[in-house]
Amino acid sequence: MNYFKEKLQGVWPAMFTPVTKDGKVSVAQLEKLIEMLIREGVDGLYILGSTGQGFLFAEKERTEITELAVQIVNKRVPIIVQVGAISTEECVRLAKHAARAGADAISSVGPIYYPASGNMAFEHYCRIAHAIDLPFIPYQIGHATNRTLVEKLLNVPNIVGMKLTTLNLLEISSVHRQTKGTWQLFSGADELICQAALCGTAGAIGSTYNVLPKIFKRLRQSFLDGEVQMANEFMLAFQNIIEDILPVIWSFYRRAMLLKHGIDIGDPKPPLLPHSLKWNDNEVMQMLGDLEEIVNKHLEPTIIHP
Amino acid sequence: MNYFKEKLQGVWPAMFTPVTKDGKVSVAQLEKLIEMLIREGVDGLYILGSTGQGFLFAEKERTEITELAVQIVNKRVPIIVQVGAISTEECVRLAKHAARAGADAISSVGPIYYPASGNMAFEHYCRIAHAIDLPFIPYQIGHATNRTLVEKLLNVPNIVGMKLTTLNLLEISSVHRQTKGTWQLFSGADELICQAALCGTAGAIGSTYNVLPKIFKRLRQSFLDGEVQMANEFMLAFQNIIEDILPVIWSFYRRAMLLKHGIDIGDPKPPLLPHSLKWNDNEVMQMLGDLEEIVNKHLEPTIIHP
Amino acid sequence: MNYFKEKLQGVWPAMFTPVTKDGKVSVAQLEKLIEMLIREGVDGLYILGSTGQGFLFAEKERTEITELAVQIVNKRVPIIVQVGAISTEECVRLAKHAARAGADAISSVGPIYYPASGNMAFEHYCRIAHAIDLPFIPYQIGHATNRTLVEKLLNVPNIVGMKLTTLNLLEISSVHRQTKGTWQLFSGADELICQAALCGTAGAIGSTYNVLPKIFKRLRQSFLDGEVQMANEFMLAFQNIIEDILPVIWSFYRRAMLLKHGIDIGDPKPPLLPHSLKWNDNEVMQMLGDLEEIVNKHLEPTIIHP
Amino acid sequence: MNYFKEKLQGVWPAMFTPVTKDGKVSVAQLEKLIEMLIREGVDGLYILGSTGQGFLFAEKERTEITELAVQIVNKRVPIIVQVGAISTEECVRLAKHAARAGADAISSVGPIYYPASGNMAFEHYCRIAHAIDLPFIPYQIGHATNRTLVEKLLNVPNIVGMKLTTLNLLEISSVHRQTKGTWQLFSGADELICQAALCGTAGAIGSTYNVLPKIFKRLRQSFLDGEVQMANEFMLAFQNIIEDILPVIWSFYRRAMLLKHGIDIGDPKPPLLPHSLKWNDNEVMQMLGDLEEIVNKHLEPTIIHP
Repeated sequence: MNYFKEKLQGVWPAMFTPVTKDGKVSVAQLEKLIEMLIREGVDGLYILGSTGQGFLFAEKERTEITELAVQIVNKRVPIIVQVGAISTEECVRLAKHAARAGADAISSVGPIYYPASGNMAFEHYCRIAHAIDLPFIPYQIGHATNRTLVEKLLNVPNIVGMKLTTLNLLEISSVHRQTKGTWQLFSGADELICQAALCGTAGAIGSTYNVLPKIFKRLRQSFLDGEVQMANEFMLAFQNIIEDILPVIWSFYRRAMLLKHGIDIGDPKPPLLPHSLKWNDNEVMQMLGDLEEIVNKHLEPTIIHP
Repeated sequence: MNYFKEKLQGVWPAMFTPVTKDGKVSVAQLEKLIEMLIREGVDGLYILGSTGQGFLFAEKERTEITELAVQIVNKRVPIIVQVGAISTEECVRLAKHAARAGADAISSVGPIYYPASGNMAFEHYCRIAHAIDLPFIPYQIGHATNRTLVEKLLNVPNIVGMKLTTLNLLEISSVHRQTKGTWQLFSGADELICQAALCGTAGAIGSTYNVLPKIFKRLRQSFLDGEVQMANEFMLAFQNIIEDILPVIWSFYRRAMLLKHGIDIGDPKPPLLPHSLKWNDNEVMQMLGDLEEIVNKHLEPTIIHP
Repeated sequence: MNYFKEKLQGVWPAMFTPVTKDGKVSVAQLEKLIEMLIREGVDGLYILGSTGQGFLFAEKERTEITELAVQIVNKRVPIIVQVGAISTEECVRLAKHAARAGADAISSVGPIYYPASGNMAFEHYCRIAHAIDLPFIPYQIGHATNRTLVEKLLNVPNIVGMKLTTLNLLEISSVHRQTKGTWQLFSGADELICQAALCGTAGAIGSTYNVLPKIFKRLRQSFLDGEVQMANEFMLAFQNIIEDILPVIWSFYRRAMLLKHGIDIGDPKPPLLPHSLKWNDNEVMQMLGDLEEIVNKHLEPTIIHP
Repeated sequence: MNYFKEKLQGVWPAMFTPVTKDGKVSVAQLEKLIEMLIREGVDGLYILGSTGQGFLFAEKERTEITELAVQIVNKRVPIIVQVGAISTEECVRLAKHAARAGADAISSVGPIYYPASGNMAFEHYCRIAHAIDLPFIPYQIGHATNRTLVEKLLNVPNIVGMKLTTLNLLEISSVHRQTKGTWQLFSGADELICQAALCGTAGAIGSTYNVLPKIFKRLRQSFLDGEVQMANEFMLAFQNIIEDILPVIWSFYRRAMLLKHGIDIGDPKPPLLPHSLKWNDNEVMQMLGDLEEIVNKHLEPTIIHP
């Protein structure tokens, strides 16, 4: 597992699951998406999370999507499969399936519907961790609860990191401290990716990295290499965009994926809602282009190009 | 539907779904439970909600439990089936099944995993409401969001009430006002049942009414008839018990159901956890007995006995 | 002190402090207000709290207002003086002054500006409690913190109750339980006065009792005597009004006091803001009249009249 | 004012107000503190804020401390005086005094005791802004409320920036965006100083900068110059320390000031509490030394030395 742990870092798209009009996975678009992401240099794929609408597919569909992804990727980059569900039993079944199907690691949200006490989250994660022999990246559970949880999870096999989707970055450094830096921590707020890198993250998982995979990889790496003014400019510009698009983010990113990569991820599945956009296609491309321009103007493009 | 609406009032247990050791529904215990509740005079049965662990059974199991319950009840009391799930499509399928199976009404929680904007909850409820021709009792969505939601739900067919599991009772009276008293409102905090009755509720849905169905029915009715001192004494005594048992409520009620009614509801399904109790059997019975005693000493038992 | 404790019950207006145009206390209006409240039968006066703008007067003004009130009341009803301030030292000085001036009891909010840990609130209240030999009614501090605080306050001399301005009524019954009913608990949400009476309150302190003192006293008493239908109707009607007037409550009550009692309490002191009303004078009087009518139509007026 | 605005940047200690045993300002220690801070190169002094216990001194004492500070500093660095108080009138008086006394700018918290609506905060800040002809840096008001507030404050004279003590750094970039970068924004969470610098801050105001003024100034500047690895290491180390000392931060910093600078700031004034430390003097010095060491080992000390 140590060998693999080193791979759990960098920029990972919380991969979209492209769907057809009737809400079923679109194999053609999925293949196109995975090929594009690998080509652009992502460090791994995080599938069937919130962005991937994992919770909105039936159990059987989730296993099929996992198998498809593993097959298409064919070991070119590592894959983490998110297996969370309301019933812990379903999580366990999905975790076992992911292992059989050839995933490199799994991840899971905590208890979903019932308010999760620390102990409940612990038992939930334990059952999942013991079901497989793969690296496991559970989600952070609130703030107060999380400390006790992390303490106990340190003794559970297979758990090698945590995904923390929080706007309070001290929650990340606190886990970094508790785990003495032994866990691979992933931040989940795309618009704080550089800030989080100063709080002990090994990488970032997010939906934006579907749209601009190469730019975000270059951003994160060159920031760590000292490009602070670029990061400063980029983060402010991106935070401004996020503030605007957040209420319609799904539809914005759907349009952006189509315009920039020719990939149609489809409408979100209910209860998620599609929204109409106030930006025309030129404006959408302009917004993406402005972000790319910030990185390009600061960096000698040829140097970092893979 | 007007005929039925009158029946949507009074004390409804959020019925337990008894399970065997392997987590499957126990038909024998389910039958025993339903017979006991009808015998004790409950006004209706609310099945497969949070207490009934609806979310923790597979879709197929939920339909089977619904069919079983409808068959056992055999129209002696009305049944509301809770059809909420993460995917709206699953909710719609479950709602249609409940209608076919002979349920009297349906209910549903709002969007579960993804943070529910008012509009998202509205569309979610709309799809469910339009899928059936039965009375529909959706859940309250937060506080701020709820006002706009109720406004829009007033024009949706089939919606005849709301379940409000809140400790801020003004949220109930606010809906009562918005709907001009036309909705059947159910409170969900058992330990505020009488207080909520002063905020516009037509009834109450809760897990305690599995354990002490007759006592709570008498409590609510006689309070409305003027027994304020009894209600005062009862509510304080019950609030005290709830404060103690809340962290282990599932295991406390499991033990109470076994001791008082000889019905075994089984361990909760994961991620819900069983807990050990600090009270022995005598103490559990004493706690229930003390509550009954408060009602009995204030009321002439023979008068209200069915 | 036991003798006095019995008097700490019933309906207490959180008394307005009438001010002139330049924000100084208006002695003439203060006198008129106190006479009216005593005539209408209030159980006591709670002065210089949030409603009385205690925090917005300079320390010297607070002592002068206390002296004026004590003198005007002349022992006809008990007076509680709220002595809270940002600096504990100022609270202690104000408490000592209240005792010298002849107040019957004191009250205080917890630490104001700095986030109050339970221990900080405890030490703050301790210093105040030890400064005087009068009954002391501190405020509730949040929910979680409050339990430990109450535990420790039980051993502090002079503390005989608590004011709980909360919409979660279980917080009241929880203190009632912890103190084994030995404390006089006052609810602070006027629109839940009857509901709170089922959670262990001895009385209620609130701004509405300036406007309709007699009606609220009759409401509370006759509810406890069994008038549940009246209480039900009244609470719903009043909750509806509160929902409307809450954003402009100061200006609404100012107008109501002038129209109904001929008393001008003046504009609130900054940062509190005056607001314009969307109701004309007739409508304001109608709203008050509708509430009175609910009580009057249920009760034989002559029986309860003082 | 434009001239001055440029000076509102960099690292500003939220200056302690040293007190004697009886809680009065200690002129000797105050002088020593100011001399040390200027010598260490701070960009300005922020006096009588939360750290400076402004709210816990009487109005007259606040004016005296302001006068003392202005006199001691004697224009060597700029001074911002925090003038917030519960009563807006007191804020206005303190603002006018600060101007007369020779302060370079003022700052103020929003309404303190009464829950501040956006409009209430706006009127409060307006009155203060109009009372003086100095640059004014108000505090952020919550999150949701802040947007509308900033919109309106943009048209108020004298307001040139904002102090944002938040752990959600997007709240800072959001104001940066709204004000099109025209405001000087100061972050208030010392343990996120570098992260906040990527969200549009011009500087930072905080209590730690009393203890380690030079180190934090070098940290911030060299981070902006590209020393990301140093910042990464420093922020994690400092966040770890903060997590430990936060519950006793006042007493920790009191001891640190005495050990490192020979300055006694005294016990905090009630309701603030002194705490005993679990670290001995060597450990306290070691903790500070470890932080300094991170900066020193990354930077050529002689280059940045003033």
